[in-house]
Amino acid sequence: MTATSHVTAEQTQFINGVAGKLSGFLSEQQDLMATVSPDVEPLIGSISNLVTGGKRLRALMCYWGWRGAGGPAGDPDIITAGCALELFQAAALIHDDIIDRSDTRRGGPSVHKRFNQLHEMNGWALDSGRFGDAAAILTGDLCLSFSEESFTEIGHRAAAGSPARRIFNVMRAEVMAGQYLDILEEVAGPVRDRAGSVERAKSIIRYKSAKYSTEHPLALGGALAGAPEGLLKGYSEFSLPLGEAFQMRDDVLGVFGDPETTGKPAGDDLREGKRTVLVGFAINQAPPAEADYLDRMLGNPGLGEVEVAEIRRVIVECGALDATESLIAELSNRAFEALERLPLEDLPLVALRQLAEAAVSRAA
Amino acid sequence: MTATSHVTAEQTQFINGVAGKLSGFLSEQQDLMATVSPDVEPLIGSISNLVTGGKRLRALMCYWGWRGAGGPAGDPDIITAGCALELFQAAALIHDDIIDRSDTRRGGPSVHKRFNQLHEMNGWALDSGRFGDAAAILTGDLCLSFSEESFTEIGHRAAAGSPARRIFNVMRAEVMAGQYLDILEEVAGPVRDRAGSVERAKSIIRYKSAKYSTEHPLALGGALAGAPEGLLKGYSEFSLPLGEAFQMRDDVLGVFGDPETTGKPAGDDLREGKRTVLVGFAINQAPPAEADYLDRMLGNPGLGEVEVAEIRRVIVECGALDATESLIAELSNRAFEALERLPLEDLPLVALRQLAEAAVSRAA
Repeated sequence: MTATSHVTAEQTQFINGVAGKLSGFLSEQQDLMATVSPDVEPLIGSISNLVTGGKRLRALMCYWGWRGAGGPAGDPDIITAGCALELFQAAALIHDDIIDRSDTRRGGPSVHKRFNQLHEMNGWALDSGRFGDAAAILTGDLCLSFSEESFTEIGHRAAAGSPARRIFNVMRAEVMAGQYLDILEEVAGPVRDRAGSVERAKSIIRYKSAKYSTEHPLALGGALAGAPEGLLKGYSEFSLPLGEAFQMRDDVLGVFGDPETTGKPAGDDLREGKRTVLVGFAINQAPPAEADYLDRMLGNPGLGEVEVAEIRRVIVECGALDATESLIAELSNRAFEALERLPLEDLPLVALRQLAEAAVSRAA
Repeated sequence: MTATSHVTAEQTQFINGVAGKLSGFLSEQQDLMATVSPDVEPLIGSISNLVTGGKRLRALMCYWGWRGAGGPAGDPDIITAGCALELFQAAALIHDDIIDRSDTRRGGPSVHKRFNQLHEMNGWALDSGRFGDAAAILTGDLCLSFSEESFTEIGHRAAAGSPARRIFNVMRAEVMAGQYLDILEEVAGPVRDRAGSVERAKSIIRYKSAKYSTEHPLALGGALAGAPEGLLKGYSEFSLPLGEAFQMRDDVLGVFGDPETTGKPAGDDLREGKRTVLVGFAINQAPPAEADYLDRMLGNPGLGEVEVAEIRRVIVECGALDATESLIAELSNRAFEALERLPLEDLPLVALRQLAEAAVSRAA
């Protein structure tokens, strides 16, 4: 076997392990729910549906962080850690979709939309939208609790005071802080100084995305395997710029991506008013009248194809897309250089290189 | 000292311990947040504000469950458990208030309302209501994570697989399921069979309130102190009917309470469309035309004083208030009888009796 096919085989085994464990965990939770009432079945149903798909980027970062630090393949603890990360991500997505008013997720209805539809199908009373949001808030809370329950199952490696537990705690707090900065910038950005918008957008992606999606999961896997401080520091030099590039790629796709491939309607990030690094560059580099136009259009849920096309034109012509692509390239380079400096065996090195390439060059 | 003054002294010491520990914990979290951005300060600020007040019923149940099972006074582990319960309760209240559209909490603005006001004071762009809800969703998530972080700090007594951890996990899952049943009944109740409404309302209060507010906290304290199965069973025979009576008292106050004393506008439970046991009795016992009137009025946010007074009249005249008061009395009796059967020393016995009396006879 080549290193690449070895990586694929091992990854598949891990992902299957995570999927199987998640399915068993949720089935036990469904049994508990059944003792409460058959009416609560859709809560776990929504969570199961959500953890079935996805790129499993965080679980994989965690896995290779573990393997890179000498953790054995197929260890149940790392599979449990992968489940905890997947459940945490599902919880975050459920609440994110309420916050962003996103009715679709991975090509299907988002959780609040599912409950909204359940209401309408059953001809229930009062407001179906409010019911959908309320049910999804509770489902997200349940999923957040499950994530922690799963993480604790790891036992002594994740016990109180352990490095892994500290990383897990900081990860959760920082991503929630980062998400708050994100929604704050949507509303405060238009009345704050334009010159600071790129720096603020960089801070948002660092906390809401880079630390959460790549840096902390990789460190978590390493810490669970007992990685020394030096290795964790090296991990961070690779994973933080990688995560930043990953999120900027996501932001570019949010404006320029093909809806067929991304599974999200074109221009949704603009309708939500996301003030990304891409937008920050545009606000600063576009002629004042066009920058004002962007400020007026961002966060307008009624943006049509014509306006989305016009915003794209402004972003391209002022050089903001080029500036963002340069930054993605620079961060990627920094990440790949740091990766090559890591004292890793062949297998985790090849695997992380592969994950990194997929993260920054993807189309969806 | 009499037993009562001994209880008061010990309780005060415990509550001060919880308050001090919460304040230290949140101040450390604020330090972490400060490394992210000064902008995220209001998240922890809202949580601090919320955990400062309240009856601390759950923490006290936990404390006396611990003491009743032989746990020593002033042990740091039980203080930490009290913090975890208070943080969990704060998280639940933050999300509850979004779900119920409650703009006040303990006489002040609720968390989503605070963020809503922050938006307006700063003249930020886009929708202040949406921003308030989104920020409160994230604040509740953060607080839920803090609850778990605090619970894990207990260490080996709350480690993976321990009875205390199992109770904590089941408590969280059941209360979220119960809250879902609550919002489901608001919308599905009007189109479901009226005959089942009292039973459904009883199931809701069992899971969303009785198990969560009294049964699980008491058991948790007991389990942390290593209580045998038999004692935990006895605890439950006391605390479950007590919690049901407690919630029914709350429901009666939600319709008939004095806003000056409860801190909530009169009739808010009716405007939210809460289908309580009280309402269930009324729907079944009132003349059909009046039952239909209740079905039409419940969940109408525009209910004025005249309608609230009319609903009260219907509830009183059909005997639903009497039926509810009888049930409260019956459940209270059952709880107090079970309490006297518990093999407790004088101090925890007196304390639990006092807590139970306050819970079922309160006016706020």
